[in-house]
Amino acid sequence: MHLPPERMTPLKALRLGIDTHNELIIYLRADSPVCRSEGFSAMSRVLVSSEEHHAIATLNIVTGDLLKKGQIGFSEPAWLRLQLNDNDAIWLSHPKPVQSISYVRAKVYGHTLDEMAFQSIINDIVDGRYADVHVAAFVTACGDKSLNNDEITALTHAMIKAGSTIDWGLPIVVDKHCVGGLPGNRTTPIIVPILAACGLTMPKTSSRAITSPAGTADTMETLTNVCLSQDEMRNVVKQEGACLAWGGSMRLSPADDLLIQVERALDIDSEGQLIASVLSKKIAAGATHVLIDIPVGTTAKIRTPEAAKQLAESFKSVAKKLGLILKILISDGSQPVGKGIGPALEAYDILAVLQNHSDAPVDLKQRACMVAGAMLEMIGYVKAGKGLPKALEIIETGQAWKKFQAICHAQGGLHVPPIASYRYSLVCHSSGVISGVDNRKLAQVAKLAGAPADPEAGVEFFIKIGQHVEANQILMTIHSANAGELNYAVEFLKEHKNIILIEPGEKTCH
Amino acid sequence: MHLPPERMTPLKALRLGIDTHNELIIYLRADSPVCRSEGFSAMSRVLVSSEEHHAIATLNIVTGDLLKKGQIGFSEPAWLRLQLNDNDAIWLSHPKPVQSISYVRAKVYGHTLDEMAFQSIINDIVDGRYADVHVAAFVTACGDKSLNNDEITALTHAMIKAGSTIDWGLPIVVDKHCVGGLPGNRTTPIIVPILAACGLTMPKTSSRAITSPAGTADTMETLTNVCLSQDEMRNVVKQEGACLAWGGSMRLSPADDLLIQVERALDIDSEGQLIASVLSKKIAAGATHVLIDIPVGTTAKIRTPEAAKQLAESFKSVAKKLGLILKILISDGSQPVGKGIGPALEAYDILAVLQNHSDAPVDLKQRACMVAGAMLEMIGYVKAGKGLPKALEIIETGQAWKKFQAICHAQGGLHVPPIASYRYSLVCHSSGVISGVDNRKLAQVAKLAGAPADPEAGVEFFIKIGQHVEANQILMTIHSANAGELNYAVEFLKEHKNIILIEPGEKTCH
Repeated sequence: MHLPPERMTPLKALRLGIDTHNELIIYLRADSPVCRSEGFSAMSRVLVSSEEHHAIATLNIVTGDLLKKGQIGFSEPAWLRLQLNDNDAIWLSHPKPVQSISYVRAKVYGHTLDEMAFQSIINDIVDGRYADVHVAAFVTACGDKSLNNDEITALTHAMIKAGSTIDWGLPIVVDKHCVGGLPGNRTTPIIVPILAACGLTMPKTSSRAITSPAGTADTMETLTNVCLSQDEMRNVVKQEGACLAWGGSMRLSPADDLLIQVERALDIDSEGQLIASVLSKKIAAGATHVLIDIPVGTTAKIRTPEAAKQLAESFKSVAKKLGLILKILISDGSQPVGKGIGPALEAYDILAVLQNHSDAPVDLKQRACMVAGAMLEMIGYVKAGKGLPKALEIIETGQAWKKFQAICHAQGGLHVPPIASYRYSLVCHSSGVISGVDNRKLAQVAKLAGAPADPEAGVEFFIKIGQHVEANQILMTIHSANAGELNYAVEFLKEHKNIILIEPGEKTCH
Repeated sequence: MHLPPERMTPLKALRLGIDTHNELIIYLRADSPVCRSEGFSAMSRVLVSSEEHHAIATLNIVTGDLLKKGQIGFSEPAWLRLQLNDNDAIWLSHPKPVQSISYVRAKVYGHTLDEMAFQSIINDIVDGRYADVHVAAFVTACGDKSLNNDEITALTHAMIKAGSTIDWGLPIVVDKHCVGGLPGNRTTPIIVPILAACGLTMPKTSSRAITSPAGTADTMETLTNVCLSQDEMRNVVKQEGACLAWGGSMRLSPADDLLIQVERALDIDSEGQLIASVLSKKIAAGATHVLIDIPVGTTAKIRTPEAAKQLAESFKSVAKKLGLILKILISDGSQPVGKGIGPALEAYDILAVLQNHSDAPVDLKQRACMVAGAMLEMIGYVKAGKGLPKALEIIETGQAWKKFQAICHAQGGLHVPPIASYRYSLVCHSSGVISGVDNRKLAQVAKLAGAPADPEAGVEFFIKIGQHVEANQILMTIHSANAGELNYAVEFLKEHKNIILIEPGEKTCH
């Protein structure tokens, strides 16, 4: 209901300085006449209007003396979204019912949604009309395999349209994505400079971690500036052929950034939303040829070859409908890749590979070159079977490291990643052979240690399946920025003795 | 991670006087050392401990000057749950991961949960370990028909165990429930005094509205005190054979009260949770014989006879597993019952029926007596076919009204329901015959007018399907406590011209 503002006495805006993250919160006195006249109560959804802007926010009722009569308090995200100044005039009214929530309900009840429905939902989420509980319901309703390929295509379209897109005017623009679940598998910052050194265009935007200890954007942020505007990104790509940027600052798929926040709180990352999230960002960034790497392992995100095959089919079907050329690479996901797990620790692995250090993790280098090679073959840059040796050659001749430095400098400079002050090393009590690693629990140790919020936090993991270990050998070292999180990770480690299995007799190491 | 409190400097508790409803929120300065040492940021879930109590809360970060150094601010629900006094010593730490959330995820991924899983989820919700987004994910994951009968039984069991139960030591304790979706269908306050006047025991506890303009508890609250403790309820039932109380104040199924809050925000009310909610409350209240009324209509909650039959089968199957004798009554749900829609307006209808007013709504009286009669037949109080006339007789001889007054007096006195000051009447522009009513949209008008939060708000609905109407006849009157909500409801009414259909030519009335 929109009473013309002039008919109502405005409230005076006060910045309370309360950070509530994404959720827009406003604060009103319990005895405020507008509460009575409009029937608002605690947690009511309210339309907040200034002279120039409006937004839907959640109401908290102040029963103490935080506010004077006639004042309305704002949390930081509400203050910033409405672009307010102190004492700005504010009017409150009932928001129109958010119609698209009926589509979320329809999805809960098992109905199939069309593109119009997904577009309404996504637009309302981007415009801030959903409270977190509504986003949680949407994420949950799209969970498991509840979206068919037409719906995933429609959701992808909707997410692309809700943001801006880039057209490079080139016949081949490459991109890649790894479905994840493999701690330390940070191949992208190695693949991008290899391909760019071959003269390809690869405007790589990455996300931050959803449910893992680090996303590529988290790792790259320890090395350089990843918060590029679209113009800055264009300039970097024009100059170097590639970039390694965070997708979220570019509004290429702003809905995805909001969905990911709630997915992280719920630790739910569904197949339909995974595909829509990945492909919406690739298409918005102007990619024409995309490689999807799906690691398979009993404790990876994708646990069986059958599940990988099914996910691959969905990816292919949706990509085809969207006019994207897509190749799937199904890879080994039985154990972590490289040594580092966590933003900065993974960055050090990347530097070691690119700089051809003698102690660089061999598996990380091999994996990155396998993917880069497959991409070189996919676009016909080399013949089948020649991709991997070509990629290795570009690293070993230093061309990849040179290109990586050039990209980082174009983005604002190459930094030294931070190092953690608090550490705990897990030592093996008796000798044996490593027979298994629980990727999920290992990732949780790194998260409890503070990753990805603390970039220096995580795990250094020193062993591989099949390796012989001796008594008193260090198996892994936990890194934390503070004592609280270090203790928390150690406590979890002690409660879960089967993270590393050692033969004979599957003896555990503590 | 639980550092012993003595190792950390405590914070001083400050009551900020911010009402955040059910969500426990705490406020900490951005420069607080504990943020750094524990790695907390805005919206982190935090374990808050005083000397005597602890709870998990959500963190808001204060960047302004609301708090002095060393202070921690509390929202009202957090302050009350921890039972604090000013300057109490408070310690913060990381909460253990809430294990039961992995069961919620399993449900999202389509797995079947056992009783232990439901018990963990329900206990954690009751103990305040879930943020609203987690409850929203659970409600959504249990949506549609995703729970099988064994799971519904397990959920019901879990909800009963999470609260307290009453044993009346009697062979027959009756109860009833209507599945709802029919505006104005407030038969319970008529049925209870009929059965109590027959000498039956009916300790009726009702819920507040979930997605409707009024629940029985909302309506009864306009007539008497419904917030009884278990002891008060026992005394009322001992004295009068029955009560008409709100279930929420009795902690008979405390989980249900928390789930309902989020179901209301999402406007989702799933079949499994519906059955668990209803049966957990009945069994906890000590019922042995329960009648479930399922109105069927194209705009009622249950739209087809097939859906009603399926719901009935689930109800019967779960009741049998729980040792409850249950009878299903499938009734007509094509249009509103009585005149009033909204707490107080429905109360006036009930008074008119019980007091045998000449203008009392005939359909409401008939429906109430049909249900009461079926219950009298179910327990063998009268022979088959004799229930309805017996129930009518008890109203018409004034015995039901006498018993109703006695119950209300035992609960704390009989009050006059409030009357709304703001009204809007919808007038018919031309004559015709009423051919249809959209129950859902009509309920939404009543909700937008302020029901059930404002008890006097709602809709008076004057017409029935098949009735002839004249030009300038009033079809319905919207009642509101304030101008804002009245205008909001009127705006919605004007945007939805098909709430009432009038023949010939389905002409609409505005």
